[in-house]
Amino acid sequence: MTDFSYDDFMQLSEHELVPHLNDFSVLFAQQFSREKLNHLCKVADAARYIRRTSAGADFLAGLLKHYSVLNFFVQPSSRTFLSFCTAESMLGMRRLSVRDINISSIAKGESLSDSIHTFISYVDLVVMRHPDDYSGVDAFWTTLKSHRRLTLKGEKCPIPIISGGSGKKQHPTQSLLDIYTLERAFKDMGGIDGKTIMLVGDLKRGRTVRSLSYMMKEYKDVSLIFCAPEEYQMEKDILNFLDDNGIPYKFANSIDEAVAEADAVYMTRIQDEWDSEKKTDGSHTAAKEDFIFTMENLKQMKEHAALLHPLPKRDEIEKEIDYCDDERVYYWRQERNGMWMRVALIAWLFKVDEEILNYKLHNRL
Amino acid sequence: MTDFSYDDFMQLSEHELVPHLNDFSVLFAQQFSREKLNHLCKVADAARYIRRTSAGADFLAGLLKHYSVLNFFVQPSSRTFLSFCTAESMLGMRRLSVRDINISSIAKGESLSDSIHTFISYVDLVVMRHPDDYSGVDAFWTTLKSHRRLTLKGEKCPIPIISGGSGKKQHPTQSLLDIYTLERAFKDMGGIDGKTIMLVGDLKRGRTVRSLSYMMKEYKDVSLIFCAPEEYQMEKDILNFLDDNGIPYKFANSIDEAVAEADAVYMTRIQDEWDSEKKTDGSHTAAKEDFIFTMENLKQMKEHAALLHPLPKRDEIEKEIDYCDDERVYYWRQERNGMWMRVALIAWLFKVDEEILNYKLHNRL
Amino acid sequence: MTDFSYDDFMQLSEHELVPHLNDFSVLFAQQFSREKLNHLCKVADAARYIRRTSAGADFLAGLLKHYSVLNFFVQPSSRTFLSFCTAESMLGMRRLSVRDINISSIAKGESLSDSIHTFISYVDLVVMRHPDDYSGVDAFWTTLKSHRRLTLKGEKCPIPIISGGSGKKQHPTQSLLDIYTLERAFKDMGGIDGKTIMLVGDLKRGRTVRSLSYMMKEYKDVSLIFCAPEEYQMEKDILNFLDDNGIPYKFANSIDEAVAEADAVYMTRIQDEWDSEKKTDGSHTAAKEDFIFTMENLKQMKEHAALLHPLPKRDEIEKEIDYCDDERVYYWRQERNGMWMRVALIAWLFKVDEEILNYKLHNRL
Repeated sequence: MTDFSYDDFMQLSEHELVPHLNDFSVLFAQQFSREKLNHLCKVADAARYIRRTSAGADFLAGLLKHYSVLNFFVQPSSRTFLSFCTAESMLGMRRLSVRDINISSIAKGESLSDSIHTFISYVDLVVMRHPDDYSGVDAFWTTLKSHRRLTLKGEKCPIPIISGGSGKKQHPTQSLLDIYTLERAFKDMGGIDGKTIMLVGDLKRGRTVRSLSYMMKEYKDVSLIFCAPEEYQMEKDILNFLDDNGIPYKFANSIDEAVAEADAVYMTRIQDEWDSEKKTDGSHTAAKEDFIFTMENLKQMKEHAALLHPLPKRDEIEKEIDYCDDERVYYWRQERNGMWMRVALIAWLFKVDEEILNYKLHNRL
Repeated sequence: MTDFSYDDFMQLSEHELVPHLNDFSVLFAQQFSREKLNHLCKVADAARYIRRTSAGADFLAGLLKHYSVLNFFVQPSSRTFLSFCTAESMLGMRRLSVRDINISSIAKGESLSDSIHTFISYVDLVVMRHPDDYSGVDAFWTTLKSHRRLTLKGEKCPIPIISGGSGKKQHPTQSLLDIYTLERAFKDMGGIDGKTIMLVGDLKRGRTVRSLSYMMKEYKDVSLIFCAPEEYQMEKDILNFLDDNGIPYKFANSIDEAVAEADAVYMTRIQDEWDSEKKTDGSHTAAKEDFIFTMENLKQMKEHAALLHPLPKRDEIEKEIDYCDDERVYYWRQERNGMWMRVALIAWLFKVDEEILNYKLHNRL
Repeated sequence: MTDFSYDDFMQLSEHELVPHLNDFSVLFAQQFSREKLNHLCKVADAARYIRRTSAGADFLAGLLKHYSVLNFFVQPSSRTFLSFCTAESMLGMRRLSVRDINISSIAKGESLSDSIHTFISYVDLVVMRHPDDYSGVDAFWTTLKSHRRLTLKGEKCPIPIISGGSGKKQHPTQSLLDIYTLERAFKDMGGIDGKTIMLVGDLKRGRTVRSLSYMMKEYKDVSLIFCAPEEYQMEKDILNFLDDNGIPYKFANSIDEAVAEADAVYMTRIQDEWDSEKKTDGSHTAAKEDFIFTMENLKQMKEHAALLHPLPKRDEIEKEIDYCDDERVYYWRQERNGMWMRVALIAWLFKVDEEILNYKLHNRL
């Protein structure tokens, strides 16, 4: 695969790139088969179980103690950044971060590829959030071309890249934590298979809902409800994908209309940071009334249903819901699931996932 | 206490809030009784003693090795930030930081409360500096409402918040280190009790001198001298507080006038960052001649007296004093005391303070 | 030496300052004798050898585990910053960083000297990059005046400062890594002695090529070729220095003209960040055709020759060269050498360099 020139490589579609990724880097939600998803959920569960004891925490912190990671985040992020940092620390990694492109050599006219080459000269993992859709591919190509390799369980591997969100399209670790949260919410009801999931808000530009839709292909008998104002409705490429894969979906004009049918409601914020005309007064686009989740909607939900949100949120969920102590409000737990899923993901890339499963097996509390 | 709505909670006065804090979080100087202050000074002394040996340093670094902390500083800070970082590291904590609100989700319209909720999903302590007076209360309320708890010596505790300075009013850890510095300066002379302390400079907007005044209530027979230009003179609320608590004070029109009477002189900088009209040329308001501490003033000071400054300083202390090797110049040592006091404070919040005292007891050098 | 006043100290020339540095701080390339250079290369080699095993990595990470370092970088940097961070972590140091002067107390009008005093109240090493030529001298003076000392192998030492680049003149650790890279490139050919080195690009403002020229005094029979457009040609002070020390040099008007004679070609970028009129559109000054290193030039190079670049680069090296797999392309390895050289340098300052050499001696793989 290193035979591709840079220009040719950057021309490949996500679909064509997936086989090249080969468990070395994490760029796209569609890299993950049902089997891998199940495995990662299991590792995440094991890590969270293990860390309850001091001995378990010591075990985890010893796994990657001589590896280092750069968190290269050049767009705003709290959750993704902090949960990666925490996950990395739990595994004992030494963390570095670059959060402002103006303090890096990119300010001196360096190409992204050269910057990445520099990063992977020093660190053993790069987690990156970047506004360009193909920044991760650029970085991945550089890891293949660079001579530096990690030896993991006897195998020579390029330095891994994990996307922490790139452009409007991909945010694969968010998808993983959404899957993990849904699986946990429905763990006594057969998991995600057979469930109806309603996606609400800015479906057009919300990379989380787009990725989640893609991943439904891995689950059986799932159906989707798209609930969004016309200007934010789900894009044609996703609808075509669902049609091609026989995943049923329908549209709803308000939360009221369909909330009672849903096993999960996945709320999203209006992503006005992508608006061509940005507001300069610090204000934000308000959510429309029909697409604000209310206490009334909570009452209408099924008894076992789950309310998710990738966060940050603004006004699309009524404030009273935040601390109403209803078990169906999942978004705070969803955040913490993200941390555990990131522990699992990094452990898997560095091939210590089986050690985590074994530790749990042999150290039942 | 979790019965309060957010709006009701934010209406409570500092006085009403103190009992709710309950040793879980540190927001106000007035949380600390004489007994607690003495205890923290003792723990700080013990930690500094222990850390002289490599074994002692190992002991300290093991105390909180599986806990993490976020330093959330959205206003400029060198001393407070670095001394917290160093203190946290000495106790073995894993540190994260957010120093720019523009790289956090607040840039996407998230509320401070939601941001804090996210932070405490991942970390076990938040140290925050924020321009809003009530930001710490907002954060504290969120820790009560969130479901995440730490188990410390068998007790379930909300995630602690420590204020590293909020708005113009509070900077409790600065007060603690000021107390610790004064106690050490007067350790062979009965401590702070009975001393005369002169406060100089911008008393109106200097939160350190305001807090220190409040804390004098905990000490016996202290008297205060306020030495400031009229426009920066101490505010009425503090004077009323002193009257109510029978703490004598007087005013001085220059340092010269009263320096010979003082056991301690506490200098402050003109806090022109709070001026409604900010200078745009990078210049700063100069101190007035009568309120600049000179080599002459140093000669006039009592033999055992102490010269303090919370730093940063500008022109209010003559440059020659910085390195004149006079034992009475305390402000550089005051900085380092801050680090030890923060070690003590965090140890106390996480209930490992007694372990530090015991280690010292059993490991005399 | 602490008898100098601040103003007098700041008047000293680099030449006069060198003896004061006394192995306490690293500010100038000319501090390093041939003997020290050889020693540091040996320590760097040993550290890189040791770190291949997990036991070796543990050994290194134990050496400075109770020391902390502040990376104070107020100019853009990727390589220098990250390689220092990685080196520090490998030695077990606790790292802190300040990368933006606006979040420090300098924003409140504090002097650089006071800021440094604060830093060295909390940390045991300051690595700094600063736009002012004499910022490092200012910092060094402060370390002498401050009372805080480290006890290293029984000796009381001021807190060390390492320059990570100051102003247009000095970048001593870059010089060290350049020397290390050249020594490794020529290790089977007698090292740097007797070689011809061509320096290309912006020689006027490139502190790396200036420092490298100075250091050639320590090597025997080296000759230099300066290849630059007239406006970027090497400055008179360096030419005088070479004349005084009997180091032969000549000029070339293009890479083509002299590339076949060179044992090493050291490329540099046009440092347009120092231009008095800065471009505001994010564009950069293009390299001139005669000074762009091409695939053709690579063919013209001697068989054993080495192509170096301090990076970041822009257009002065043809893109195809980056990944052409020619052994003579050294710049990517040069980056990683920088990390190992910084490990060696810090180990030497903290007097654990001999421990590293001994560990290697007694633990042959």
